[in-house]
Amino acid sequence: MTPQPHHALPTRPLYRRADLLKLLEPGSIAVVGASARPGSFGERTVSNLAQFAGRLHLVNPRYDRLGERPCHPSIAALPEVPDLVVAATPMEACESVVTDCVAAGVGALVLYAAGFAETGRPERAALQRRIVGMARAGGLRLLGPNCIGLTDYVRRAEISFVAIPRPAAPPTGPAIGIVSQSGNLGFALAQAVEAGAQVGRVLTCGNSGDIDVADLVAALAEDPNCSAIALLFEGMAEPLRLIEAASLARRNGKPVVVHKLGTGEQGAQAAMSHTGSLAGSNEVYRAAFARAGMIHADSFEGLLELAGFFAKAPAPGAAGVAVVSTSGGAAIMAADCAEAHGVPLPQPGPEAQAVLAARIPEFGSARNPCDVTAQVLTDPGSLRDCMEALLADPAYGALILPNGFAYDVATPRFRLLDELAAQHGKAACVVWTSQWLEGPGAREVEATRNVALFRSMDRCLAAIAAWQAQAGPAMPEAPPTRLSPPAAREQAARLLAEASGPVLTEREAKAVLAAYGIPVVQETLATDAEAAVRAAEATGFPVVLKVESPALPHKTEAGVIRLGLGDAGAVRAAFTEVMDNARRAAPDAPINGVLVQPMVPAGIEIVVGARRDPLFGPTVLVGLGGVLVELLRDSAVALAPVGAGEARAMLGRLKGARLLSGFRNLPAADLDTLAGIVQRVSELAADHAGRIAEIDVNPVICAGTRQIAVDALIALSPPEAPSDG
Amino acid sequence: MTPQPHHALPTRPLYRRADLLKLLEPGSIAVVGASARPGSFGERTVSNLAQFAGRLHLVNPRYDRLGERPCHPSIAALPEVPDLVVAATPMEACESVVTDCVAAGVGALVLYAAGFAETGRPERAALQRRIVGMARAGGLRLLGPNCIGLTDYVRRAEISFVAIPRPAAPPTGPAIGIVSQSGNLGFALAQAVEAGAQVGRVLTCGNSGDIDVADLVAALAEDPNCSAIALLFEGMAEPLRLIEAASLARRNGKPVVVHKLGTGEQGAQAAMSHTGSLAGSNEVYRAAFARAGMIHADSFEGLLELAGFFAKAPAPGAAGVAVVSTSGGAAIMAADCAEAHGVPLPQPGPEAQAVLAARIPEFGSARNPCDVTAQVLTDPGSLRDCMEALLADPAYGALILPNGFAYDVATPRFRLLDELAAQHGKAACVVWTSQWLEGPGAREVEATRNVALFRSMDRCLAAIAAWQAQAGPAMPEAPPTRLSPPAAREQAARLLAEASGPVLTEREAKAVLAAYGIPVVQETLATDAEAAVRAAEATGFPVVLKVESPALPHKTEAGVIRLGLGDAGAVRAAFTEVMDNARRAAPDAPINGVLVQPMVPAGIEIVVGARRDPLFGPTVLVGLGGVLVELLRDSAVALAPVGAGEARAMLGRLKGARLLSGFRNLPAADLDTLAGIVQRVSELAADHAGRIAEIDVNPVICAGTRQIAVDALIALSPPEAPSDG
Repeated sequence: MTPQPHHALPTRPLYRRADLLKLLEPGSIAVVGASARPGSFGERTVSNLAQFAGRLHLVNPRYDRLGERPCHPSIAALPEVPDLVVAATPMEACESVVTDCVAAGVGALVLYAAGFAETGRPERAALQRRIVGMARAGGLRLLGPNCIGLTDYVRRAEISFVAIPRPAAPPTGPAIGIVSQSGNLGFALAQAVEAGAQVGRVLTCGNSGDIDVADLVAALAEDPNCSAIALLFEGMAEPLRLIEAASLARRNGKPVVVHKLGTGEQGAQAAMSHTGSLAGSNEVYRAAFARAGMIHADSFEGLLELAGFFAKAPAPGAAGVAVVSTSGGAAIMAADCAEAHGVPLPQPGPEAQAVLAARIPEFGSARNPCDVTAQVLTDPGSLRDCMEALLADPAYGALILPNGFAYDVATPRFRLLDELAAQHGKAACVVWTSQWLEGPGAREVEATRNVALFRSMDRCLAAIAAWQAQAGPAMPEAPPTRLSPPAAREQAARLLAEASGPVLTEREAKAVLAAYGIPVVQETLATDAEAAVRAAEATGFPVVLKVESPALPHKTEAGVIRLGLGDAGAVRAAFTEVMDNARRAAPDAPINGVLVQPMVPAGIEIVVGARRDPLFGPTVLVGLGGVLVELLRDSAVALAPVGAGEARAMLGRLKGARLLSGFRNLPAADLDTLAGIVQRVSELAADHAGRIAEIDVNPVICAGTRQIAVDALIALSPPEAPSDG
Repeated sequence: MTPQPHHALPTRPLYRRADLLKLLEPGSIAVVGASARPGSFGERTVSNLAQFAGRLHLVNPRYDRLGERPCHPSIAALPEVPDLVVAATPMEACESVVTDCVAAGVGALVLYAAGFAETGRPERAALQRRIVGMARAGGLRLLGPNCIGLTDYVRRAEISFVAIPRPAAPPTGPAIGIVSQSGNLGFALAQAVEAGAQVGRVLTCGNSGDIDVADLVAALAEDPNCSAIALLFEGMAEPLRLIEAASLARRNGKPVVVHKLGTGEQGAQAAMSHTGSLAGSNEVYRAAFARAGMIHADSFEGLLELAGFFAKAPAPGAAGVAVVSTSGGAAIMAADCAEAHGVPLPQPGPEAQAVLAARIPEFGSARNPCDVTAQVLTDPGSLRDCMEALLADPAYGALILPNGFAYDVATPRFRLLDELAAQHGKAACVVWTSQWLEGPGAREVEATRNVALFRSMDRCLAAIAAWQAQAGPAMPEAPPTRLSPPAAREQAARLLAEASGPVLTEREAKAVLAAYGIPVVQETLATDAEAAVRAAEATGFPVVLKVESPALPHKTEAGVIRLGLGDAGAVRAAFTEVMDNARRAAPDAPINGVLVQPMVPAGIEIVVGARRDPLFGPTVLVGLGGVLVELLRDSAVALAPVGAGEARAMLGRLKGARLLSGFRNLPAADLDTLAGIVQRVSELAADHAGRIAEIDVNPVICAGTRQIAVDALIALSPPEAPSDG
């Protein structure tokens, strides 16, 4: 894991918890635009703050008092400088509120008002920039605009104009911090507290004019009351800041679970019109999230329960999972889902086996997954004994207890499981198969310190698989060790500077690859047919002929490549043919001649590429070549540069990974050699991030350790245009 | 759609509603084993029947009275012959209960007791068979053994020993009937009624000794109070009975939504030990379900909501879906999920567009999906106007209203949407993004007649996609028109009878295929090298040589095939080589000679096969050949025989379907020709279902309408062993 990307720096350092303390833990709050009008944003905000333990001030020049409280004409007129101002004012008044806050030395400001950058209008975006600039210059931290607010369930600072979801009591166990760009969805998630979910804070940031999700994640990373972070994310212009914040959280032992919206084209379009933020490529987001150790939630409805699991789970131990069911159907469901997620359900050792055999009736199932049957109704001790025996078995790192009926009778089971899980230091999950989703007992599971609640067997096993994956070797904290020769960077820079055009010829591109130690097919440039024949004879037949011209990067389509030429006559004929085709395809282009290369024997064809992502910078890609890459888009992407471990992991993610270990009559590819090529291409892309737009090494022909790039394309970027700020 | 499979008949006709009326709508119930002991199955059953409006009798020789009620010593001693007996007795007493019921002429019996076939013990399975045999002979319908029971929320006949989930009121709108093998999971589903789900009946059948899920589906198909059937299914020995029942339901306009357990290997194993039923191949189950028009629920937790949607939805109309959100985030989520499920979200026509433009603020989104924004708090009419305009727009067949906050303010929106959906005859869904899953308003959505409730955007769009798919051309009710020549069946029967062994030689197999009108590559059998050369010259070079022997079905592995032989010398050399290899591979086997075939020009390689499924009988398979079929197992399966439409639909289901319409330099395959080959192979498999175990036509080389089978394998079944009954 690379906590800071090596190739780019965020334009503004992350705000840390200390920077946002007046927003997150205000001693005093002033509501500007406080109002007596029922339903108004000002009235709702004051009403939501009824339980706030700090000092609350109201500001509105139209009132002297509101209810029991005095109302002040301006921020300047307040009896103290408030830590936090909440502006329940329309868009038009925001600029003067910022001016007043800066003048008074206020610490933080929340702006509800919409109508800024999200409208897509240039003048509104400019207004937002102006306001944010004023706030930053004046040391005022700004949340919003277009922001629903934030809430702190521990301190009861509930700052919003919407009906704040309220737990019956503040969280008692490990608590989740929710961070969301969308205020509506952030508070929709938070409504889970009404049913007992353990949420400590909800932080939403609307347009992210100043404070963004990355800052909020960083602040929660340092919050002692937060055990896991649930992040609902749409996209942002500088996502590397989020990666940095997530790395900070990881170092502090706080898992970051993320669900990303805007994954489709339509969704991304909708996301852009929603907050004006860039959507970026989803696969690159996934790669960056994975590198930072973030945990991916596939669905919105699974986000909070996945975060709850990570808040409660110990470090992963044994890979095996035990299932103790009171229903045969639920045991089958557990087995199905475990198999789908690659989670092993091993059989118990002799001691636990003996307990199961003694305690489970003959019409049940005394194996894993076990079915204690409805007998539990008349003999509750049987369930306890089975759970205890399985948690004590070293084969198991986690135990799942499906719960079919929501009724009070089951509640003691959950408390018992909580104790046993703590005692054995293992993960425990209740899967709520009852479709009375918030029926009796669910709240009690939520309130435990050690038992996670899932309302889907599939999501439970997906969570366990993600948790077990964390047990694998961590990505290195330091930048990966380079594999390329020391002189590669300088040598390649020279070659790039001398390139004949914005797209390098194959010969030029292969020289750059060779500088990075990537094996490329040998070749001779021939400018007439007889030179080609001589080169072919020196190379050994059969050979390949390819026209070399910066104007013809796509050789197959232009008909300027001929394979498998077996003798001098064939070379001669092919030379004439490909040169004719080249002149027809690009009549005015310079043609350097024809490359003569040996035919590389058959092997598995691999594509290695690199691309500069507009948000993340250079990325590297590896995929299966030929029909598979085009038909199935079977490829893996990572931020460049990658180390050896990450390159190997990319190969493992390919759907066709099985092909690499030998298929039909093709020899297996040596994975270390291939990963080395991926790593070298990633170093090339990262070293020259400002210069190289795209690299396409296609194919690399692999047979054992003999792996060779037989064609390559490198495209350069146009000189950078000045940023529009 | 084929309501009855053409090739097999159920061993017992389905029970229909009239056959099960005394179970489903009993006028009188007797509880055998009634008891005063709290927590006993007898006591719990009587207590669950407190609200039963019919006549309730108690049977237990140990009591004269139980509470207010008289208690009778035996069934014979009851004042009337009860319609239904519920036996809360242990396994050992069941046989005599059956005897007594038959003697008295009781209509139906529910057996709770476990310990029968599900234990896996032969003597217990025999006991179960004996009991069921006695019941059937005596005209007694039996539910169970190992059965939790059933409930009728309309008539309040709640027959079970578990705590029956109770709705606040009987269902008012379209009601779901739940059918489940697993009693625990069936009632776990039914607990949704506590939160307002509209369920009319829950029917579980445990070991399915007599009545099984197929009978229960058939009974609900004729139940006027049932609008959709939710089926939780593990597997059964005669699944074609279920297909028949589902077809009946479909004809009666009652959608059957099914979630199948036991989809993995471990799950299937657990399912077998649970109810002793066979799991069968999942892909064949999926094919059979699809043919019967059943709707597949991917997840347990999505089953009831999918059934609820189908219970309420009108017939599918326009394909477009409109989304009216009060949250930008939820609008993005809808767009993402719509794209993932291929559901179009077109833009509104000019009239609706004008309404959106007028009613949505500039910081919202006046397109589809639209974001009315939190403005709805101060201007609820804006939401009404937008919903009305979009429902009136002919581009839309359905409307989705995401609901972020569970609070009473939103409830009128749901009632309004209910009215508008009814008025325009369109489908309407509320997607509950609030994670207060049963918070205020959810119950009100459930109670509407026209608005379906989803707690997942993804599941909502999946449901709409499944609903739209029902709008496609229905499978024909009649058996499909045959494509094979009239004499094919007889001719093939003769060829199969004359086969040289249990695995036909390539030449024999191709003769059978040719009888069905499947184009096969021409060939000449040569017994010496010179004959092979003559045959090659007559065929035209290049040719293929293959050793013909019943002992060498796998020719590539044995080295007895040579491709692309360009001249007489090559044919001569290859002849010696393949014959040598054949003698080495199978020293004692008869070798008929060598087949000489022309090289078929390159094309897309397709595999067409057939296999006899142990549960469903003959099935047909089509897949992409070569590397794709082995690496990705990209294939589609259907019950044989298929008609032209179903064969075309199979081709469309292939992941690599795109390949068929032309890829790189390969010409597109003519889909009608290819579908014809699939259909002919399916007819061959179905015609000779008792004789053919497996057909493998691999590959069929396809280029336009020139499609030719170049290799084929047919394996015959051993003569059938007598069934063990």
